[in-house]
Amino acid sequence: MSILAGIHTVKHALESGEPISELIIERGKGDGGKGNRGKGHPRLNELIYLAKARQIRVVFQQRQALERLAEGVPHQGVVARVASGKRQKFEEWLAALPMQNDDGQNNPLILLLDGVTDPHNLGACVRTAEAAGCVAVILPKDHAASMDSPVAAKAACGALSRLPVLTVTNLARAMKQLQDKGFWLSGLAGEADVSLYQAGLSGAVGIVMGAEGKGIRRLVREQCDQLLSIPLPGRVESLNVSVATGVTLFEVVRQRAVDAG
Amino acid sequence: MSILAGIHTVKHALESGEPISELIIERGKGDGGKGNRGKGHPRLNELIYLAKARQIRVVFQQRQALERLAEGVPHQGVVARVASGKRQKFEEWLAALPMQNDDGQNNPLILLLDGVTDPHNLGACVRTAEAAGCVAVILPKDHAASMDSPVAAKAACGALSRLPVLTVTNLARAMKQLQDKGFWLSGLAGEADVSLYQAGLSGAVGIVMGAEGKGIRRLVREQCDQLLSIPLPGRVESLNVSVATGVTLFEVVRQRAVDAG
Repeated sequence: MSILAGIHTVKHALESGEPISELIIERGKGDGGKGNRGKGHPRLNELIYLAKARQIRVVFQQRQALERLAEGVPHQGVVARVASGKRQKFEEWLAALPMQNDDGQNNPLILLLDGVTDPHNLGACVRTAEAAGCVAVILPKDHAASMDSPVAAKAACGALSRLPVLTVTNLARAMKQLQDKGFWLSGLAGEADVSLYQAGLSGAVGIVMGAEGKGIRRLVREQCDQLLSIPLPGRVESLNVSVATGVTLFEVVRQRAVDAG
Repeated sequence: MSILAGIHTVKHALESGEPISELIIERGKGDGGKGNRGKGHPRLNELIYLAKARQIRVVFQQRQALERLAEGVPHQGVVARVASGKRQKFEEWLAALPMQNDDGQNNPLILLLDGVTDPHNLGACVRTAEAAGCVAVILPKDHAASMDSPVAAKAACGALSRLPVLTVTNLARAMKQLQDKGFWLSGLAGEADVSLYQAGLSGAVGIVMGAEGKGIRRLVREQCDQLLSIPLPGRVESLNVSVATGVTLFEVVRQRAVDAG
Protein backbone atom coordinates (compact mmCIF):
# COMPACT_ATOMS: atom_id res chain seq x y z
CA MET A 1 0.00 0.00 0.00
CA SER A 2 1.51 3.34 -0.98
CA ILE A 3 0.33 6.89 -0.36
CA LEU A 4 0.06 9.81 -2.75
CA ALA A 5 -0.53 13.36 -1.52
CA GLY A 6 -1.39 16.70 -3.13
CA ILE A 7 -3.91 17.74 -5.78
CA HIS A 8 -1.61 17.52 -8.81
CA THR A 9 -0.09 14.15 -7.85
CA VAL A 10 -3.44 12.54 -7.04
CA LYS A 11 -5.10 13.93 -10.17
CA HIS A 12 -2.29 12.52 -12.31
CA ALA A 13 -2.72 9.10 -10.67
CA LEU A 14 -6.51 9.14 -11.14
CA GLU A 15 -6.18 10.06 -14.79
CA SER A 16 -3.46 7.54 -15.56
CA GLY A 17 -5.52 4.69 -14.09
CA GLU A 18 -3.35 3.81 -11.10
CA PRO A 19 -5.00 1.23 -8.78
CA ILE A 20 -6.27 3.73 -6.17
CA SER A 21 -8.27 2.01 -3.44
CA GLU A 22 -9.38 5.08 -1.50
CA LEU A 23 -9.43 8.87 -1.78
CA ILE A 24 -9.19 10.73 1.53
CA ILE A 25 -10.40 14.33 1.52
CA GLU A 26 -9.89 16.81 4.35
CA ARG A 27 -13.16 17.27 6.22
CA GLY A 28 -14.68 20.71 5.69
CA LYS A 29 -12.80 21.30 2.44
CA GLY A 30 -14.06 19.02 -0.27
CA ASP A 31 -17.45 18.27 1.24
CA GLY A 32 -18.48 21.88 1.50
CA GLY A 33 -18.24 21.82 5.28
CA LYS A 34 -20.54 23.43 7.78
CA GLY A 35 -22.02 26.70 6.55
CA ASN A 36 -20.39 26.24 3.15
CA ARG A 37 -23.80 25.48 1.62
CA GLY A 38 -22.35 22.43 -0.03
CA LYS A 39 -19.71 24.34 -1.97
CA GLY A 40 -16.32 22.67 -1.50
CA HIS A 41 -12.97 23.51 -3.03
CA PRO A 42 -13.46 23.21 -6.82
CA ARG A 43 -10.19 21.34 -7.48
CA LEU A 44 -10.95 18.85 -4.69
CA ASN A 45 -14.49 18.44 -6.05
CA GLU A 46 -12.98 17.60 -9.44
CA LEU A 47 -10.93 14.82 -7.81
CA ILE A 48 -14.03 13.49 -6.01
CA TYR A 49 -15.87 13.48 -9.36
CA LEU A 50 -12.99 11.60 -11.07
CA ALA A 51 -12.83 9.06 -8.21
CA LYS A 52 -16.58 8.41 -8.21
CA ALA A 53 -16.55 7.94 -11.99
CA ARG A 54 -14.01 5.17 -11.37
CA GLN A 55 -16.01 3.78 -8.42
CA ILE A 56 -13.22 4.57 -5.99
CA ARG A 57 -14.29 5.01 -2.37
CA VAL A 58 -14.11 8.62 -1.10
CA VAL A 59 -13.86 9.32 2.65
CA PHE A 60 -13.61 12.54 4.64
CA GLN A 61 -11.15 12.78 7.53
CA GLN A 62 -9.65 15.40 9.83
CA ARG A 63 -6.64 17.40 8.69
CA GLN A 64 -4.43 15.61 11.26
CA ALA A 65 -5.11 12.21 9.68
CA LEU A 66 -4.05 13.51 6.26
CA GLU A 67 -0.94 15.12 7.69
CA ARG A 68 0.13 11.87 9.32
CA LEU A 69 -0.27 9.96 6.06
CA ALA A 70 1.44 12.62 3.90
CA GLU A 71 4.74 12.57 5.88
CA GLY A 72 5.40 16.27 5.33
CA VAL A 73 4.38 16.43 1.66
CA PRO A 74 1.91 19.34 1.22
CA HIS A 75 -1.38 17.41 0.82
CA GLN A 76 -3.64 20.37 -0.07
CA GLY A 77 -6.60 18.49 1.40
CA VAL A 78 -6.23 15.20 -0.48
CA VAL A 79 -4.43 11.89 0.01
CA ALA A 80 -4.88 8.67 -1.98
CA ARG A 81 -4.14 5.08 -1.01
CA VAL A 82 -2.75 3.07 -3.90
CA ALA A 83 -2.91 -0.71 -3.89
CA SER A 84 0.56 -2.04 -4.53
CA GLY A 85 -0.90 -5.15 -6.17
CA LYS A 86 1.26 -8.17 -6.78
CA ARG A 87 4.87 -7.01 -6.75
CA GLN A 88 6.75 -8.28 -9.72
CA LYS A 89 9.57 -10.58 -8.68
CA PHE A 90 13.06 -9.73 -9.90
CA GLU A 91 13.63 -13.24 -11.30
CA GLU A 92 10.36 -13.17 -13.27
CA TRP A 93 11.06 -9.68 -14.57
CA LEU A 94 14.58 -10.69 -15.64
CA ALA A 95 13.40 -13.86 -17.37
CA ALA A 96 10.83 -11.89 -19.38
CA LEU A 97 13.13 -8.97 -20.24
CA PRO A 98 13.82 -8.67 -23.98
CA MET A 99 17.52 -8.05 -24.49
CA GLN A 100 16.95 -6.52 -27.92
CA ASN A 101 14.77 -3.49 -28.60
CA ASP A 102 12.57 -2.96 -31.69
CA ASP A 103 15.61 -1.85 -33.69
CA GLY A 104 17.37 -5.12 -32.93
CA GLN A 105 19.83 -3.38 -30.63
CA ASN A 106 21.04 -5.16 -27.53
CA ASN A 107 20.91 -2.30 -25.08
CA PRO A 108 18.56 -2.30 -22.11
CA LEU A 109 19.65 0.17 -19.42
CA ILE A 110 18.99 -0.37 -15.71
CA LEU A 111 19.77 1.55 -12.53
CA LEU A 112 20.78 -0.17 -9.29
CA LEU A 113 20.71 1.90 -6.08
CA ASP A 114 22.64 0.60 -3.08
CA GLY A 115 21.81 2.31 0.20
CA VAL A 116 19.80 5.31 -0.97
CA THR A 117 17.77 5.72 2.21
CA ASP A 118 16.41 9.23 1.67
CA PRO A 119 12.95 8.95 0.05
CA HIS A 120 13.29 12.29 -1.77
CA ASN A 121 16.58 11.19 -3.36
CA LEU A 122 15.09 7.79 -4.24
CA GLY A 123 12.12 9.40 -5.99
CA ALA A 124 14.38 11.83 -7.86
CA CYS A 125 16.59 8.92 -9.02
CA VAL A 126 13.53 7.01 -10.30
CA ARG A 127 12.33 10.09 -12.21
CA THR A 128 15.80 10.55 -13.75
CA ALA A 129 16.04 6.84 -14.63
CA GLU A 130 12.69 6.93 -16.44
CA ALA A 131 13.74 10.05 -18.35
CA ALA A 132 16.99 8.38 -19.43
CA GLY A 133 15.08 5.37 -20.78
CA CYS A 134 15.90 2.81 -18.07
CA VAL A 135 13.81 -0.38 -18.10
CA ALA A 136 13.94 -0.89 -14.30
CA VAL A 137 15.36 0.37 -11.02
CA ILE A 138 16.64 -2.29 -8.61
CA LEU A 139 16.96 -1.77 -4.85
CA PRO A 140 18.11 -4.00 -1.99
CA LYS A 141 15.23 -4.69 0.41
CA ASP A 142 17.13 -3.70 3.53
CA HIS A 143 19.28 -0.76 2.48
CA ALA A 144 16.87 1.52 0.70
CA ALA A 145 14.05 3.98 1.24
CA SER A 146 10.60 2.66 0.37
CA MET A 147 8.90 3.77 -2.81
CA ASP A 148 5.65 3.56 -0.81
CA SER A 149 6.56 6.86 0.85
CA PRO A 150 4.54 9.86 -0.37
CA VAL A 151 7.81 11.82 -0.37
CA ALA A 152 9.39 9.39 -2.86
CA ALA A 153 6.24 9.26 -4.99
CA LYS A 154 6.10 13.06 -5.24
CA ALA A 155 9.79 13.37 -6.20
CA ALA A 156 9.33 10.62 -8.83
CA CYS A 157 6.86 12.92 -10.57
CA GLY A 158 4.67 10.15 -12.02
CA ALA A 159 7.58 7.98 -13.21
CA LEU A 160 6.63 5.22 -10.74
CA SER A 161 3.62 4.12 -12.71
CA ARG A 162 5.74 3.62 -15.82
CA LEU A 163 8.98 2.14 -14.52
CA PRO A 164 9.26 -1.10 -12.49
CA VAL A 165 11.06 -0.59 -9.19
CA LEU A 166 12.14 -4.07 -8.04
CA THR A 167 13.44 -4.97 -4.60
CA VAL A 168 15.83 -7.87 -4.07
CA THR A 169 17.04 -9.55 -0.90
CA ASN A 170 20.64 -9.80 -2.02
CA LEU A 171 21.81 -7.10 -4.42
CA ALA A 172 25.16 -8.73 -5.22
CA ARG A 173 23.39 -11.99 -6.21
CA ALA A 174 20.92 -10.08 -8.41
CA MET A 175 23.92 -8.43 -10.08
CA LYS A 176 25.39 -11.85 -10.84
CA GLN A 177 22.09 -12.87 -12.47
CA LEU A 178 22.09 -9.67 -14.54
CA GLN A 179 25.68 -10.37 -15.66
CA ASP A 180 24.72 -13.92 -16.64
CA LYS A 181 21.95 -12.43 -18.79
CA GLY A 182 24.51 -10.20 -20.55
CA PHE A 183 24.56 -6.94 -18.55
CA TRP A 184 27.80 -5.05 -18.02
CA LEU A 185 27.69 -3.40 -14.59
CA SER A 186 29.48 -0.12 -13.83
CA GLY A 187 29.68 1.14 -10.25
CA LEU A 188 30.22 4.80 -9.47
CA ALA A 189 32.90 5.35 -6.83
CA GLY A 190 34.62 8.65 -6.07
CA GLU A 191 38.03 7.03 -5.71
CA ALA A 192 37.93 5.02 -8.99
CA ASP A 193 40.80 5.77 -11.36
CA VAL A 194 38.77 5.41 -14.55
CA SER A 195 36.74 8.46 -15.54
CA LEU A 196 33.12 8.03 -16.57
CA TYR A 197 34.08 9.72 -19.83
CA GLN A 198 36.75 7.14 -20.67
CA ALA A 199 34.40 4.20 -20.16
CA GLY A 200 32.65 2.31 -22.90
CA LEU A 201 28.98 2.15 -21.98
CA SER A 202 27.35 0.53 -24.99
CA GLY A 203 25.27 -2.66 -24.97
CA ALA A 204 23.20 -3.89 -22.01
CA VAL A 205 24.31 -1.64 -19.16
CA GLY A 206 23.60 -1.44 -15.44
CA ILE A 207 24.68 1.61 -13.45
CA VAL A 208 25.25 1.05 -9.72
CA MET A 209 25.03 4.11 -7.46
CA GLY A 210 25.77 4.16 -3.73
CA ALA A 211 24.57 6.41 -0.95
CA GLU A 212 26.11 9.85 -0.52
CA GLY A 213 28.98 9.71 1.90
CA LYS A 214 28.98 5.93 2.28
CA GLY A 215 29.21 4.87 -1.38
CA ILE A 216 28.60 1.33 -2.61
CA ARG A 217 28.93 -1.53 -0.07
CA ARG A 218 31.97 -3.80 -0.46
CA LEU A 219 30.26 -6.96 -1.76
CA VAL A 220 28.26 -4.91 -4.27
CA ARG A 221 31.40 -3.09 -5.35
CA GLU A 222 33.28 -6.35 -5.87
CA GLN A 223 30.47 -7.62 -8.11
CA CYS A 224 30.79 -4.63 -10.50
CA ASP A 225 32.55 -5.21 -13.83
CA GLN A 226 34.20 -1.80 -13.58
CA LEU A 227 34.33 1.17 -11.21
CA LEU A 228 34.08 4.69 -12.57
CA SER A 229 34.33 8.19 -11.13
CA ILE A 230 32.87 11.50 -12.25
CA PRO A 231 35.72 14.03 -12.51
CA LEU A 232 34.93 16.92 -10.12
CA PRO A 233 36.88 20.08 -11.01
CA GLY A 234 35.51 21.98 -7.97
CA ARG A 235 36.13 21.47 -4.28
CA VAL A 236 32.80 19.92 -3.31
CA GLU A 237 33.67 16.29 -2.62
CA SER A 238 30.56 14.69 -4.07
CA LEU A 239 27.39 15.34 -5.99
CA ASN A 240 23.88 14.76 -4.73
CA VAL A 241 23.03 11.15 -5.62
CA SER A 242 20.21 12.12 -8.00
CA VAL A 243 22.51 14.59 -9.80
CA ALA A 244 25.29 11.97 -10.03
CA THR A 245 22.72 9.47 -11.34
CA GLY A 246 21.64 11.98 -14.00
CA VAL A 247 25.20 12.76 -15.08
CA THR A 248 26.00 9.03 -15.39
CA LEU A 249 22.79 7.81 -17.07
CA PHE A 250 22.88 10.68 -19.58
CA GLU A 251 26.50 9.84 -20.44
CA VAL A 252 25.10 6.44 -21.49
CA VAL A 253 22.38 8.25 -23.50
CA ARG A 254 25.05 10.44 -25.12
CA GLN A 255 27.29 7.53 -26.07
CA ARG A 256 24.32 5.71 -27.62
CA ALA A 257 23.35 8.81 -29.61
CA VAL A 258 26.94 9.07 -30.88
CA ASP A 259 27.05 5.34 -31.74
CA ALA A 260 23.74 5.67 -33.61
CA GLY A 261 25.28 8.52 -35.62
CA MET B 1 21.85 38.04 7.00
CA SER B 2 21.53 34.35 6.25
CA ILE B 3 20.69 31.42 8.52
CA LEU B 4 22.40 28.06 8.90
CA ALA B 5 20.78 25.20 10.82
CA GLY B 6 21.89 21.78 12.06
CA ILE B 7 25.00 20.56 13.85
CA HIS B 8 26.98 19.45 10.78
CA THR B 9 26.22 22.57 8.73
CA VAL B 10 27.03 24.98 11.58
CA LYS B 11 30.20 23.11 12.55
CA HIS B 12 31.42 23.25 8.93
CA ALA B 13 30.75 27.00 8.84
CA LEU B 14 32.55 27.60 12.15
CA GLU B 15 35.58 25.62 11.02
CA SER B 16 35.79 27.23 7.58
CA GLY B 17 35.77 30.73 9.08
CA GLU B 18 32.42 31.98 7.77
CA PRO B 19 31.43 35.38 9.24
CA ILE B 20 29.02 34.06 11.88
CA SER B 21 27.60 36.85 14.02
CA GLU B 22 25.61 34.75 16.48
CA LEU B 23 25.14 31.14 17.55
CA ILE B 24 21.66 30.29 18.85
CA ILE B 25 21.39 27.15 20.98
CA GLU B 26 18.13 25.54 22.09
CA ARG B 27 17.52 26.31 25.76
CA GLY B 28 17.84 23.24 27.95
CA LYS B 29 19.99 21.37 25.43
CA GLY B 30 23.39 23.00 25.11
CA ASP B 31 23.40 24.84 28.44
CA GLY B 32 22.78 21.78 30.48
CA GLY B 33 19.24 22.84 31.38
CA LYS B 34 17.53 22.52 34.71
CA GLY B 35 18.58 19.48 36.64
CA ASN B 36 21.14 18.62 33.99
CA ARG B 37 23.98 19.53 36.38
CA GLY B 38 25.55 21.61 33.65
CA LYS B 39 25.93 18.71 31.26
CA GLY B 40 24.57 19.69 27.85
CA HIS B 41 24.60 17.77 24.58
CA PRO B 42 28.30 17.07 23.82
CA ARG B 43 28.10 17.96 20.11
CA LEU B 44 26.34 21.25 20.93
CA ASN B 45 28.94 21.96 23.61
CA GLU B 46 31.64 21.48 20.99
CA LEU B 47 29.99 24.14 18.80
CA ILE B 48 29.74 26.51 21.78
CA TYR B 49 33.45 25.94 22.44
CA LEU B 50 34.35 26.61 18.78
CA ALA B 51 32.19 29.77 18.76
CA LYS B 52 33.68 31.14 21.98
CA ALA B 53 37.18 30.51 20.68
CA ARG B 54 36.29 32.77 17.75
CA GLN B 55 34.60 35.31 20.07
CA ILE B 56 31.20 34.69 18.49
CA ARG B 57 28.19 35.55 20.67
CA VAL B 58 26.27 32.48 21.93
CA VAL B 59 22.64 32.88 23.04
CA PHE B 60 20.07 30.37 24.31
CA GLN B 61 16.50 30.48 23.02
CA GLN B 62 13.33 28.40 23.08
CA ARG B 63 12.87 25.59 20.58
CA GLN B 64 10.09 27.55 18.84
CA ALA B 65 12.47 30.42 18.01
CA LEU B 66 14.94 28.01 16.38
CA GLU B 67 12.19 26.29 14.45
CA ARG B 68 10.97 29.59 13.04
CA LEU B 69 14.48 30.52 11.88
CA ALA B 70 15.27 27.06 10.43
CA GLU B 71 12.28 27.01 8.02
CA GLY B 72 11.80 23.27 8.30
CA VAL B 73 15.47 22.26 8.19
CA PRO B 74 16.20 19.89 11.13
CA HIS B 75 18.13 22.25 13.43
CA GLN B 76 19.17 19.68 16.09
CA GLY B 77 19.30 22.45 18.68
CA VAL B 78 21.53 24.93 16.84
CA VAL B 79 21.10 27.81 14.40
CA ALA B 80 23.72 30.34 13.30
CA ARG B 81 23.27 33.83 11.90
CA VAL B 82 25.81 34.61 9.18
CA ALA B 83 26.58 38.21 8.26
CA SER B 84 26.17 38.56 4.52
CA GLY B 85 28.79 41.31 4.45
CA LYS B 86 29.15 43.58 1.44
CA ARG B 87 27.59 41.74 -1.47
CA GLN B 88 29.84 41.73 -4.47
CA LYS B 89 28.33 43.62 -7.38
CA PHE B 90 28.01 41.79 -10.67
CA GLU B 91 29.78 44.56 -12.60
CA GLU B 92 32.74 44.60 -10.19
CA TRP B 93 32.98 40.81 -10.25
CA LEU B 94 32.88 40.76 -14.05
CA ALA B 95 35.51 43.49 -14.41
CA ALA B 96 37.89 41.58 -12.09
CA LEU B 97 37.26 38.13 -13.64
CA PRO B 98 40.36 36.65 -15.29
CA MET B 99 39.36 35.20 -18.64
CA GLN B 100 42.37 32.89 -18.69
CA ASN B 101 43.20 30.29 -16.08
CA ASP B 102 46.69 29.39 -14.88
CA ASP B 103 47.21 27.17 -17.94
CA GLY B 104 46.51 30.12 -20.25
CA GLN B 105 43.18 28.64 -21.27
CA ASN B 106 40.26 30.94 -21.91
CA ASN B 107 37.51 28.94 -20.28
CA PRO B 108 35.65 30.26 -17.24
CA LEU B 109 32.32 28.51 -16.74
CA ILE B 110 29.29 30.19 -15.16
CA LEU B 111 25.72 29.13 -14.37
CA LEU B 112 22.74 31.46 -14.80
CA LEU B 113 19.44 30.44 -13.18
CA ASP B 114 16.26 32.13 -14.40
CA GLY B 115 13.24 31.66 -12.16
CA VAL B 116 14.46 28.88 -9.84
CA THR B 117 12.21 29.80 -6.91
CA ASP B 118 12.50 26.62 -4.84
CA PRO B 119 15.29 27.09 -2.25
CA HIS B 120 16.16 23.37 -2.16
CA ASN B 121 16.63 23.31 -5.95
CA LEU B 122 18.63 26.54 -5.83
CA GLY B 123 20.99 25.12 -3.20
CA ALA B 124 21.40 21.86 -5.13
CA CYS B 125 22.23 23.82 -8.31
CA VAL B 126 24.87 25.86 -6.45
CA ARG B 127 26.46 22.66 -5.07
CA THR B 128 26.50 21.12 -8.56
CA ALA B 129 27.95 24.30 -10.10
CA GLU B 130 30.78 24.35 -7.58
CA ALA B 131 31.54 20.69 -8.23
CA ALA B 132 31.67 21.31 -11.98
CA GLY B 133 34.19 24.14 -11.51
CA CYS B 134 31.92 27.14 -12.15
CA VAL B 135 33.35 30.54 -11.18
CA ALA B 136 29.95 32.05 -10.29
CA VAL B 137 26.19 31.53 -10.22
CA ILE B 138 24.06 34.45 -11.42
CA LEU B 139 20.41 34.97 -10.45
CA PRO B 140 17.84 37.64 -11.24
CA LYS B 141 16.85 39.57 -8.09
CA ASP B 142 13.09 39.13 -8.60
CA HIS B 143 12.69 35.64 -10.04
CA ALA B 144 14.76 33.50 -7.74
CA ALA B 145 14.80 31.90 -4.32
CA SER B 146 17.09 33.57 -1.82
CA MET B 147 20.40 31.97 -0.89
CA ASP B 148 19.78 33.39 2.62
CA SER B 149 17.30 30.57 3.23
CA PRO B 150 18.56 27.80 5.55
CA VAL B 151 16.98 25.30 3.12
CA ALA B 152 19.14 26.56 0.25
CA ALA B 153 22.25 26.70 2.43
CA LYS B 154 21.76 23.09 3.55
CA ALA B 155 21.25 21.81 -0.02
CA ALA B 156 24.34 23.73 -1.17
CA CYS B 157 26.39 21.56 1.21
CA GLY B 158 29.04 24.19 1.97
CA ALA B 159 29.49 25.31 -1.66
CA LEU B 160 28.13 28.78 -0.83
CA SER B 161 31.23 29.84 1.02
CA ARG B 162 33.40 29.02 -2.00
CA LEU B 163 31.34 30.15 -4.99
CA PRO B 164 30.05 33.70 -5.54
CA VAL B 165 26.28 33.80 -6.04
CA LEU B 166 25.54 37.18 -7.65
CA THR B 167 22.10 38.74 -8.07
CA VAL B 168 21.34 41.15 -10.89
CA THR B 169 18.32 43.39 -11.51
CA ASN B 170 18.09 42.57 -15.21
CA LEU B 171 19.32 39.13 -16.24
CA ALA B 172 19.15 39.80 -19.99
CA ARG B 173 21.33 42.91 -19.59
CA ALA B 174 23.86 40.98 -17.48
CA MET B 175 23.96 38.36 -20.25
CA LYS B 176 24.81 41.09 -22.79
CA GLN B 177 27.68 42.22 -20.55
CA LEU B 178 28.93 38.63 -20.27
CA GLN B 179 28.79 38.25 -24.06
CA ASP B 180 30.74 41.51 -24.50
CA LYS B 181 33.42 40.05 -22.21
CA GLY B 182 33.63 36.94 -24.43
CA PHE B 183 31.15 34.43 -22.94
CA TRP B 184 29.12 32.18 -25.21
CA LEU B 185 25.70 31.62 -23.60
CA SER B 186 23.71 28.41 -24.08
CA GLY B 187 20.14 28.22 -22.83
CA LEU B 188 18.49 24.88 -22.04
CA ALA B 189 15.00 24.60 -23.53
CA GLY B 190 13.05 21.36 -23.93
CA GLU B 191 11.79 22.32 -27.38
CA ALA B 192 15.21 23.30 -28.84
CA ASP B 193 16.17 21.35 -31.97
CA VAL B 194 19.87 21.19 -31.18
CA SER B 195 20.91 18.44 -28.76
CA LEU B 196 23.26 19.27 -25.89
CA TYR B 197 25.54 16.57 -27.29
CA GLN B 198 25.84 18.23 -30.71
CA ALA B 199 26.80 21.59 -29.25
CA GLY B 200 30.32 22.96 -29.01
CA LEU B 201 30.85 24.07 -25.43
CA SER B 202 34.51 25.05 -25.32
CA GLY B 203 35.88 28.46 -24.33
CA ALA B 204 34.18 30.86 -21.90
CA VAL B 205 30.75 29.35 -21.42
CA GLY B 206 27.59 30.36 -19.59
CA ILE B 207 24.77 27.84 -19.11
CA VAL B 208 21.28 29.33 -18.66
CA MET B 209 18.68 27.13 -16.90
CA GLY B 210 15.01 28.01 -16.44
CA ALA B 211 12.46 26.93 -13.89
CA GLU B 212 10.84 23.51 -14.17
CA GLY B 213 7.61 23.77 -16.10
CA LYS B 214 8.04 27.43 -17.04
CA GLY B 215 11.46 27.33 -18.67
CA ILE B 216 13.52 30.41 -19.48
CA ARG B 217 11.66 33.74 -19.83
CA ARG B 218 11.35 35.17 -23.34
CA LEU B 219 13.79 38.10 -23.07
CA VAL B 220 16.40 35.87 -21.43
CA ARG B 221 15.88 33.21 -24.12
CA GLU B 222 16.33 35.77 -26.89
CA GLN B 223 19.63 36.87 -25.38
CA CYS B 224 21.09 33.33 -25.54
CA ASP B 225 23.61 32.56 -28.31
CA GLN B 226 22.08 29.12 -28.76
CA LEU B 227 19.30 26.99 -27.34
CA LEU B 228 19.93 23.33 -26.52
CA SER B 229 17.84 20.41 -25.31
CA ILE B 230 18.72 17.27 -23.39
CA PRO B 231 17.43 14.24 -25.35
CA LEU B 232 14.96 12.37 -23.09
CA PRO B 233 14.44 8.77 -24.25
CA GLY B 234 11.79 8.12 -21.55
CA ARG B 235 8.32 9.54 -21.15
CA VAL B 236 8.96 11.91 -18.25
CA GLU B 237 8.74 15.34 -19.86
CA SER B 238 11.49 17.04 -17.93
CA LEU B 239 14.27 16.52 -15.42
CA ASN B 240 14.51 18.12 -12.01
CA VAL B 241 16.34 21.43 -12.52
CA SER B 242 19.35 20.40 -10.40
CA VAL B 243 19.66 17.11 -12.35
CA ALA B 244 19.38 18.96 -15.69
CA THR B 245 21.99 21.45 -14.44
CA GLY B 246 24.31 18.55 -13.56
CA VAL B 247 23.86 16.81 -16.92
CA THR B 248 24.58 20.07 -18.77
CA LEU B 249 27.52 21.36 -16.71
CA PHE B 250 29.20 17.95 -16.73
CA GLU B 251 28.84 17.77 -20.53
CA VAL B 252 30.97 20.94 -20.53
CA VAL B 253 33.42 19.22 -18.15
CA ARG B 254 33.49 16.17 -20.46
CA GLN B 255 34.13 18.19 -23.61
CA ARG B 256 36.96 20.05 -21.89
CA ALA B 257 38.51 16.77 -20.73
CA VAL B 258 38.33 15.45 -24.31
CA ASP B 259 39.81 18.69 -25.73
CA ALA B 260 42.64 18.52 -23.20
CA GLY B 261 43.36 14.98 -24.39
